[in-house]
Amino acid sequence: MDIDEALSRIKTESFLAVGDVAKLDISREDRVGIAEAILAEGKDKADLLAISLAHLQATGRVVITRVSAEQLELLSSASLPEGCVLEHNSKARTVVIRSAKIWPKSGLVGILAAGTADIPVAEEARVVAEEMGSNVLFEYDVGVAGIHRLFPCLMRMEKADVIVVAAGREGTLPAVVAGLVEAPVIGLPVSTGYGLGGSGQAALYSMLQSCSVLTVVNIDAGFVAGAYAAKIARQKAFGKKQS
Amino acid sequence: MDIDEALSRIKTESFLAVGDVAKLDISREDRVGIAEAILAEGKDKADLLAISLAHLQATGRVVITRVSAEQLELLSSASLPEGCVLEHNSKARTVVIRSAKIWPKSGLVGILAAGTADIPVAEEARVVAEEMGSNVLFEYDVGVAGIHRLFPCLMRMEKADVIVVAAGREGTLPAVVAGLVEAPVIGLPVSTGYGLGGSGQAALYSMLQSCSVLTVVNIDAGFVAGAYAAKIARQKAFGKKQS
Amino acid sequence: MDIDEALSRIKTESFLAVGDVAKLDISREDRVGIAEAILAEGKDKADLLAISLAHLQATGRVVITRVSAEQLELLSSASLPEGCVLEHNSKARTVVIRSAKIWPKSGLVGILAAGTADIPVAEEARVVAEEMGSNVLFEYDVGVAGIHRLFPCLMRMEKADVIVVAAGREGTLPAVVAGLVEAPVIGLPVSTGYGLGGSGQAALYSMLQSCSVLTVVNIDAGFVAGAYAAKIARQKAFGKKQS
Amino acid sequence: MDIDEALSRIKTESFLAVGDVAKLDISREDRVGIAEAILAEGKDKADLLAISLAHLQATGRVVITRVSAEQLELLSSASLPEGCVLEHNSKARTVVIRSAKIWPKSGLVGILAAGTADIPVAEEARVVAEEMGSNVLFEYDVGVAGIHRLFPCLMRMEKADVIVVAAGREGTLPAVVAGLVEAPVIGLPVSTGYGLGGSGQAALYSMLQSCSVLTVVNIDAGFVAGAYAAKIARQKAFGKKQS
Amino acid sequence: MDIDEALSRIKTESFLAVGDVAKLDISREDRVGIAEAILAEGKDKADLLAISLAHLQATGRVVITRVSAEQLELLSSASLPEGCVLEHNSKARTVVIRSAKIWPKSGLVGILAAGTADIPVAEEARVVAEEMGSNVLFEYDVGVAGIHRLFPCLMRMEKADVIVVAAGREGTLPAVVAGLVEAPVIGLPVSTGYGLGGSGQAALYSMLQSCSVLTVVNIDAGFVAGAYAAKIARQKAFGKKQS
Amino acid sequence: MDIDEALSRIKTESFLAVGDVAKLDISREDRVGIAEAILAEGKDKADLLAISLAHLQATGRVVITRVSAEQLELLSSASLPEGCVLEHNSKARTVVIRSAKIWPKSGLVGILAAGTADIPVAEEARVVAEEMGSNVLFEYDVGVAGIHRLFPCLMRMEKADVIVVAAGREGTLPAVVAGLVEAPVIGLPVSTGYGLGGSGQAALYSMLQSCSVLTVVNIDAGFVAGAYAAKIARQKAFGKKQS
Amino acid sequence: MDIDEALSRIKTESFLAVGDVAKLDISREDRVGIAEAILAEGKDKADLLAISLAHLQATGRVVITRVSAEQLELLSSASLPEGCVLEHNSKARTVVIRSAKIWPKSGLVGILAAGTADIPVAEEARVVAEEMGSNVLFEYDVGVAGIHRLFPCLMRMEKADVIVVAAGREGTLPAVVAGLVEAPVIGLPVSTGYGLGGSGQAALYSMLQSCSVLTVVNIDAGFVAGAYAAKIARQKAFGKKQS
Amino acid sequence: MDIDEALSRIKTESFLAVGDVAKLDISREDRVGIAEAILAEGKDKADLLAISLAHLQATGRVVITRVSAEQLELLSSASLPEGCVLEHNSKARTVVIRSAKIWPKSGLVGILAAGTADIPVAEEARVVAEEMGSNVLFEYDVGVAGIHRLFPCLMRMEKADVIVVAAGREGTLPAVVAGLVEAPVIGLPVSTGYGLGGSGQAALYSMLQSCSVLTVVNIDAGFVAGAYAAKIARQKAFGKKQS
Repeated sequence: MDIDEALSRIKTESFLAVGDVAKLDISREDRVGIAEAILAEGKDKADLLAISLAHLQATGRVVITRVSAEQLELLSSASLPEGCVLEHNSKARTVVIRSAKIWPKSGLVGILAAGTADIPVAEEARVVAEEMGSNVLFEYDVGVAGIHRLFPCLMRMEKADVIVVAAGREGTLPAVVAGLVEAPVIGLPVSTGYGLGGSGQAALYSMLQSCSVLTVVNIDAGFVAGAYAAKIARQKAFGKKQS
Repeated sequence: MDIDEALSRIKTESFLAVGDVAKLDISREDRVGIAEAILAEGKDKADLLAISLAHLQATGRVVITRVSAEQLELLSSASLPEGCVLEHNSKARTVVIRSAKIWPKSGLVGILAAGTADIPVAEEARVVAEEMGSNVLFEYDVGVAGIHRLFPCLMRMEKADVIVVAAGREGTLPAVVAGLVEAPVIGLPVSTGYGLGGSGQAALYSMLQSCSVLTVVNIDAGFVAGAYAAKIARQKAFGKKQS
Repeated sequence: MDIDEALSRIKTESFLAVGDVAKLDISREDRVGIAEAILAEGKDKADLLAISLAHLQATGRVVITRVSAEQLELLSSASLPEGCVLEHNSKARTVVIRSAKIWPKSGLVGILAAGTADIPVAEEARVVAEEMGSNVLFEYDVGVAGIHRLFPCLMRMEKADVIVVAAGREGTLPAVVAGLVEAPVIGLPVSTGYGLGGSGQAALYSMLQSCSVLTVVNIDAGFVAGAYAAKIARQKAFGKKQS
Repeated sequence: MDIDEALSRIKTESFLAVGDVAKLDISREDRVGIAEAILAEGKDKADLLAISLAHLQATGRVVITRVSAEQLELLSSASLPEGCVLEHNSKARTVVIRSAKIWPKSGLVGILAAGTADIPVAEEARVVAEEMGSNVLFEYDVGVAGIHRLFPCLMRMEKADVIVVAAGREGTLPAVVAGLVEAPVIGLPVSTGYGLGGSGQAALYSMLQSCSVLTVVNIDAGFVAGAYAAKIARQKAFGKKQS
Repeated sequence: MDIDEALSRIKTESFLAVGDVAKLDISREDRVGIAEAILAEGKDKADLLAISLAHLQATGRVVITRVSAEQLELLSSASLPEGCVLEHNSKARTVVIRSAKIWPKSGLVGILAAGTADIPVAEEARVVAEEMGSNVLFEYDVGVAGIHRLFPCLMRMEKADVIVVAAGREGTLPAVVAGLVEAPVIGLPVSTGYGLGGSGQAALYSMLQSCSVLTVVNIDAGFVAGAYAAKIARQKAFGKKQS
Repeated sequence: MDIDEALSRIKTESFLAVGDVAKLDISREDRVGIAEAILAEGKDKADLLAISLAHLQATGRVVITRVSAEQLELLSSASLPEGCVLEHNSKARTVVIRSAKIWPKSGLVGILAAGTADIPVAEEARVVAEEMGSNVLFEYDVGVAGIHRLFPCLMRMEKADVIVVAAGREGTLPAVVAGLVEAPVIGLPVSTGYGLGGSGQAALYSMLQSCSVLTVVNIDAGFVAGAYAAKIARQKAFGKKQS
Repeated sequence: MDIDEALSRIKTESFLAVGDVAKLDISREDRVGIAEAILAEGKDKADLLAISLAHLQATGRVVITRVSAEQLELLSSASLPEGCVLEHNSKARTVVIRSAKIWPKSGLVGILAAGTADIPVAEEARVVAEEMGSNVLFEYDVGVAGIHRLFPCLMRMEKADVIVVAAGREGTLPAVVAGLVEAPVIGLPVSTGYGLGGSGQAALYSMLQSCSVLTVVNIDAGFVAGAYAAKIARQKAFGKKQS
Repeated sequence: MDIDEALSRIKTESFLAVGDVAKLDISREDRVGIAEAILAEGKDKADLLAISLAHLQATGRVVITRVSAEQLELLSSASLPEGCVLEHNSKARTVVIRSAKIWPKSGLVGILAAGTADIPVAEEARVVAEEMGSNVLFEYDVGVAGIHRLFPCLMRMEKADVIVVAAGREGTLPAVVAGLVEAPVIGLPVSTGYGLGGSGQAALYSMLQSCSVLTVVNIDAGFVAGAYAAKIARQKAFGKKQS
């Protein structure tokens, strides 16, 4: 690819204007391999609906994260294009609307959660990874206070291409797992805990300081962890694109 | 104990799966001397109920901390196994459910609170220490702004094996107490106060910087302070296990 | 693999004691796919030398990071086993000592640095990725203040399996790159900059908040970024191990 | 101007007392070129109404920002002086009340918002810039995750005297824009985002660290950005006062 | 300008590679109106010299900021192209190297410093504004502890197109000045002061919270303040480009 | 006073137990010159009522600060001892209950508030200073954005023994005042403002860094500022106790 | 005093320009009751000398704080006006130069330091209070870890008009003292301690949160504490100015 | 013990004045069970020597922590009382001087360090625990990145009365250990690590948030951890005092 080709790509990359409020990046999946998702948080509910339907129309599917009760109500009562279904995961606070088209899956993502309170964020990662095209295995409540619970779970995940490890409070689990497995580990800190370092800060700091090799996403960023994991899993499943 | 014995212990340590959402560490009391407690905060209320009942069934008692009004309502209306009673401490926000079995107590934990607003956290420590097997003496509202109130209270606690000192705002009391008594002191910072250093930060920092010798737990961590105190008190009461 | 096999692995995992000061985890490469590296920072220089030689002896190679001038002097003057060579990268502050054995490379890691001041950390990532078995392409000084510099560099990296993007100051580059390429992006914040958010904090925060999908490592953690990238690149190059 | 003239100005600068609660600086527009606006946040609603009406009476117009629902209700039901109209912008949370007088406009302010969630703060800047006398062009949802959306928008703003760039999350857009245009850029961080650096902190830090040349205002300070932009735009439109 | 023209500009924007370590953005002055300056801090001294000379050669002038003693020594002893002179400002820690060519000035920038310790940062702003083409007036040590010192200084600056106000410690001066003058004010916080909020944090926070309308740059960012001021001053001096 | 006398004082200092929840320091006024006040925040409402009535009974007056709506309702409906009146200041959120006894005043405290939003905290200081025995003069909304408003207010306060200056946002006013008057100035930061340094942090930092000589209390600590001011004013009014 | 008189005061307030680098506020003592002192930190040593001599000449005395070794050397070797003496306090890092004139003292300031490491800051307060005209009593190393040491010291200070209490680490002492004495207490946090809350942060936070009534100055601000104490002590000694 | 006895104790508690700079609390060991130690950091070296010798004379032993090279030189060259020896631990930076008297030991403290860089702080804890009367077992470099190294070490410590666990970086080890053993665990965070959460902050936060039951001391507070451990170990060894 030369510079002219690169520039012509920028020119032809299209986006879809939704009134004054959004310019949908509908070519993102082609460009970077994963589709744009809609972050509901902070958006006016009428704007959210308009954006979601426009996205659905353009790509056949829309993944919406961090949906509030009020937003959910509006989305649920909207009239969808024929053949589309809406799936709501109440723990993950996600809404997925998609056409009947078959969406193939490839690669295997493992997801671990250290405690029961970390499940909502782990579930957001799970929904996103699945929608982005991965098969997912998960095990919840395997924190280090009773470390014997971890070993059988890791055995189940031996074939995973990548493992997302969600943990709040002390955020210890990703470092322990990354010291035991060969798959790349993504640390996903969760805003559980109270007092100093609560709200996920201790977990994030601890993962950033890990002596084991791992990368992290932001606190509660289940979407990012799930999408990144799907990207790795898929590429490994398909082999190298260029060859 | 050799390495084979150690490994076989890990293998036989059991845990109890509660659906997908929890893996109860029911052997924890045998292993580390204090039972697992259930932190209600951040848990789905239906999950909390399922976990609590499973724990109760497996061990004959469950201690639940930081219970919200909504969670309390569900727990209170659940049908308990025959012979079990539920105790709710509204200041401590704890719920204890236990069978009629006699639970012996040993050792003596002292608990001090600097101000009236520190009582809820001190009470959480008290409930936990008692459930973990300690006798407890307590005195509240003995802060340093009127330090003459402290001396008679300390005299009452002369026989305590360990003293938990809860304090918010400036968090001064643990350092003063640790400079006056022989028992180990556990500083328990409380999220009272406003402005800079409010929410317990000043108290925690002050305890960490103490010139007197003491250890601390996190802000509002009444559970940890109570359980750790019970651990020390019991071991001192029983003498050294190995001899 | 069943639980007995898992436990027997723990038992047979060996480590190598170096006096009282270290227990080398020499089976790490077999277990998690990348070798242990020695973080020189904070270590007594005599201890560092002893640990490095022991590691070299056990595995045929040792990678040492964040080496101070004083530590370098001692390492450089040490008598190495026959056939071993020491390589020092002065910008990266790394020392590698290895035997004459051929170390094969596979996969392709891309490394970008936003500014000239970010080069030392990018170089640390480069050295580590190469020692962990990757081919590496790099381009430095392509920050967004003159964004036209970026496009030709990205074209050169089209075949990379993974791209590490080092950036200090505002830390903007990883988000821009992750919005343009299909390979997974690892954000590597660098402690350049001054004033509020200096020392890499702005860069790290900005990467954690990125609307593009990427993961991050800690500020200046060139080692982690390089090792993690190598892990991904190699696995993609070899295809899935289990199949 | 000599010192006597300066002091006599201080003496004759008038202010308008509103009960005990306010001293309106009604000469501010003459003195510094932009009128005082009323920050509703933190004000008693009865006090707010009294202050607003007094300001309206004295200057013919009042701009009120960060108006709560409850305050809006009181303002909307107040009886206004004859010929005055009240305009409410629900996204910006602003209320403007003004007489029928013609308010001329001069100069051109450009306003960009990186995401849909940044619109409320960008709108506050827009309302204020217009009320302070500027023509305004705006484009929303042009963040760097799909950077091809930016170029056509910048082309539309080529004649702007100054550009306000609102961005939450990673706050990357102002630095990119300031590297591409000749007009001065004002970075306006927005309190969107979650986790570490959320609430606009990452955006502000990133803008402060920008390698491109720009100035910033505080998080969510749409009023300050709009008023400062209007000040620059107007002065450039009118040419130098002194000549 | 249409999209094809925009893209062709990106293509033809040139940069100048300096070994592997830098890609000089030598078209920046044409593009955004102010030249690139070289931040010495964090750069290898040999790299700095190579970059500076390349920049000088390409544009006839180079401005280098935050130059360390060691870097200065190398720069001072370098052999410059014929007809070039090197100017070092020891308080500002700047080095300017330029050819004999006449560099015209236009517009007027005012610079105020609150205390004697704020002078180095104010001087950096002054050097940069002058090199970026402005006339500069300055007054130092006019802090609010003796506010009568301020009025005569402001009178001297009545014709300034923009005023930079440097202040450390409490950072109060910019807000006071912005409440008294019509020119736009740029707050420049300085890392003086000690204790909580020292190192410029109190000054920056205070300027961000100012009730007067002003924008700010980062702590000690004399370069940014000077360059931004020059941009405003010049545009106002020349009138609107498009007309 | 010798050591025996000192110790016998400690012994005879009485306190009044209110159930388990409080130990009232009813001798505090005699000991340190100002009475204990009750901080309502964080207290159970039933406990608050019991404590307040006990204090009233013991000393003839009780000052309660930071009273919530719910607490106010309970206090207002309580049956008071005969001859006692309850005064509620809705801006200050204070409740004072006192007997008909005449409470003499001496000394003069000045209170300034920078903005309308700072009035609640200034009012808390005013109520407390008056109850602690001072005459009070106050002026509100005299911030530095229109500094000409300040001079006439300061003139009215020329005879004040001490001046409390409440300010949120940038917190500039106390430093300006302390540079102009001879009376000691107490800086009272207020939790107004938004964005970085909001919630009073910028104001507190700025006051701590002030080049003028002043002391500060915590953010929103109207009680402390008022009580401390009263202490100084009274002692100056009465002259030195010892002479 | 009317407004004309106030304004004519501003006009006649003189200041003394020292080159470009300083504008000495030589009328400060008349205006606010305490002289300006020179903060050496951050000042160029040649500038410091020029400023100090100018101040000495104008007022007969100069107090210089936070003097570095290098600055001290230059000051010590300067030729002073005839009859002037230089006093250096090596712990306090202060230099005082004054003429032979008798400087009367009035009022009594007490100074306590909690630990030996707090002495330098306490000494700075002592030197300043004495130079500002107070008699001073001091007692060092009376921290709360051995609280019995405090009582005899407080007895010695019974006649003090005001007490400065310096404390690092946990910063507990001021709250304890303020609960025991009638004189106003000024908390002076000191940057001793290590770990979280070290560098005086725990001490400052703890003092700001104190349940006892006290005001604070910034960390290590011995100058402010000493000057403020002298202001109170002197006014109380002389009685009310107006009467 | 009644109140008279308590007060008479305060009266007779002696302290030893060392010039103006210290008041040694020589009865501390009798009162709280562990002797005062001298924190060298922040102390003038001449004062340190005087204080150390006075303490040695009074109690027969002095433990000095955080001794700088310069302080060590002075202490080492001092002439000690006859029969006294000085022991310096260069990693722990401690100096102990004691008479020939036999100092009995009782109880058993276990000390673990996660990494080689954590050894200095662990050694400080070890020296202090031994001097305070405990037997000590230690194991270093057993961090969780290679968790199989931990199990044999824990087996060696099965009889420990209390275990101190030192860990920097991610600070994970104490939580893992506390989930496996019955002895009380004291978390000792160490200021190793770099980037966000470096300097021990991540370690401390992670320990405070631990789901396992443990208490913590401040970062690098080896002295506090060692002394507290000795207190617990000794009391358990001797049984309950009162019985």
